[in-house]
Amino acid sequence: MLENLTLQSVLAAAERIAPHVVRTPVLRHALADAGGEPGHDRAGGLRTELLLKAESLQPIGAFKLRGAFSLMTTLIAGIPGVVAHSSGNHAQAVACAAARLGLRAVIVMPSDAPELKRKRTAAWGAEIVTVGPDSDERAERCESIAATEGLAIVPPYDHPLVAAGQGTAALELFEDVGAMSRFYAPVSGGGLMAGCATVLAALSPDTEIIGVEPRDGDDTARSLAAGERVEVPPPQTIADGLRVRRPGALTFPVVQAHVARIELVDDDELLDTMAWALTHLHLVLEPSGAAALAVARREGAASPGATTRAGTNQAEVMRAGVILSGGNVDSGLLAEVVARAGGMMARPPRSPAP
Amino acid sequence: MLENLTLQSVLAAAERIAPHVVRTPVLRHALADAGGEPGHDRAGGLRTELLLKAESLQPIGAFKLRGAFSLMTTLIAGIPGVVAHSSGNHAQAVACAAARLGLRAVIVMPSDAPELKRKRTAAWGAEIVTVGPDSDERAERCESIAATEGLAIVPPYDHPLVAAGQGTAALELFEDVGAMSRFYAPVSGGGLMAGCATVLAALSPDTEIIGVEPRDGDDTARSLAAGERVEVPPPQTIADGLRVRRPGALTFPVVQAHVARIELVDDDELLDTMAWALTHLHLVLEPSGAAALAVARREGAASPGATTRAGTNQAEVMRAGVILSGGNVDSGLLAEVVARAGGMMARPPRSPAP
Repeated sequence: MLENLTLQSVLAAAERIAPHVVRTPVLRHALADAGGEPGHDRAGGLRTELLLKAESLQPIGAFKLRGAFSLMTTLIAGIPGVVAHSSGNHAQAVACAAARLGLRAVIVMPSDAPELKRKRTAAWGAEIVTVGPDSDERAERCESIAATEGLAIVPPYDHPLVAAGQGTAALELFEDVGAMSRFYAPVSGGGLMAGCATVLAALSPDTEIIGVEPRDGDDTARSLAAGERVEVPPPQTIADGLRVRRPGALTFPVVQAHVARIELVDDDELLDTMAWALTHLHLVLEPSGAAALAVARREGAASPGATTRAGTNQAEVMRAGVILSGGNVDSGLLAEVVARAGGMMARPPRSPAP
Repeated sequence: MLENLTLQSVLAAAERIAPHVVRTPVLRHALADAGGEPGHDRAGGLRTELLLKAESLQPIGAFKLRGAFSLMTTLIAGIPGVVAHSSGNHAQAVACAAARLGLRAVIVMPSDAPELKRKRTAAWGAEIVTVGPDSDERAERCESIAATEGLAIVPPYDHPLVAAGQGTAALELFEDVGAMSRFYAPVSGGGLMAGCATVLAALSPDTEIIGVEPRDGDDTARSLAAGERVEVPPPQTIADGLRVRRPGALTFPVVQAHVARIELVDDDELLDTMAWALTHLHLVLEPSGAAALAVARREGAASPGATTRAGTNQAEVMRAGVILSGGNVDSGLLAEVVARAGGMMARPPRSPAP
């Protein structure tokens, strides 16, 4: 169990990071019919209200800034800099935080990181070291650089201060909207989920907490089933932020304690959801950033209100909190998403009223 | 002068529309160097803070919902429905408001309206009548339908209740961020600008109010120069929301009284700004929705802080409020914007730190 990760530690992180991090908006979006499309259904009323925490609107385009500042604002004076390994968004977060706090930053990145994320990281003045596509190799290199150069490691997820920082996303969501029926967030190493689940277990204990993983990267689902951390082969999913091969040692017990279930999404559903977000939310999401939304839409459309109370004016409203975790997507993939959006735009947003 | 358009009438509109309209977020974005790109400049500090009122995140994807609800919530019982003419976003707004308020809606649309806007309007259950690309013809048809069928006209801009509704965007912006050095909004018929300028003249009288028009559709700029309303030929700009041929009769005197100057943008700058917003803000904007941002970026990059105080740590911060008025764009144009964003993504967000 991650003993130092508590509601109190998230509240303390919120105070430390407030000067540096954006309080992102919560966008409310109604799913009104079984097609899961937006609109106001005069016959049946609102079925599901999505409460979308748009972390894609952070300055670096992802929630990772929260964890980076949470840890880095506790470093004592005299530490010359930090080192981190990341497939992209954590790299930008650490580089950005280091620039603001006046620290040197060395970032170990995979060879298959999106070009956009790599260039943005370098643009913050960070030094980049490239090490294969496997996350274990990167962790090892990160430790050796820290030891050789006297730098502090900023882990991407498996640290109580990092997880506490990520948990501030759920704290703000709860402060803005109150209790939710369900909460959806992507699970990779588990830092975001551990932090958010800690907050919601304390403040909104009736919320069903749902983790989302790519089908090809379901290490947390397998680990929960096995009752211990399981490793999967390197995932090939387009969700480059969710390619971790096994849950964090410190975060996994928190996930075990609080997450009700894990749902899986495939690349096709991620692309569809990215196109839907472009068209209906006017937001750019990266594949990882669309993962929780993909499942929330699927389940929102199939919620009890939609299936058993159709035709009445009293459909129950399911309130679903969703973390839109990031928006950094290469233009090539974005072009593919726009092409899908074209097909989507050709259909009306809902069936015409009767 | 539009005597019924006052701070009080905007406050009253805000109360009427609150149950129906989203309080959109204000996104803060730093412009740190002369390139107008985001980032945190360690050498010179922040030069311009953009305070972006993201009306593209309204449910219909544009601010027009404010004006439609502002007027339609004052209609007396017994009126069977409404009629409106619009190139797109006002159509969706009226159709959406009518669906929610249980009214029939007839919408007169131009033949060259974006397909997306047309389909969305129909999807709200509105009846669509198509009349050429010229806005005067549409206004005439709208009046004849109103007379024949006993419907109330919801004008797109030239009505004190509509302008008061649009002014709630500036009211919320001021409530969230306080006084601004500058305020940028697009000007078409002038409803948005008249409402917003009325609010800011009362609450933030030192704010310089800047209207933005397409270069090919500069009727307000010409009218201000002439001291009277001037008509221009049908504009061909890609900013389909800004193709009105002359300022509103009621809104123009308000614009005359409060707007400091009009700045013009061409299609190329609109496309660049849309690509920049996709890449750096993770927002989809339509051309009209990017117009005010295009000028704010141009002027922010050239602000005194950036030109005279470079190299110091005390650059003055220019706080610029900007209305991002809408995000409804066809997938064909969006694909073009993504291609531009591809070129943009290949460049780092700012020069590396020294």
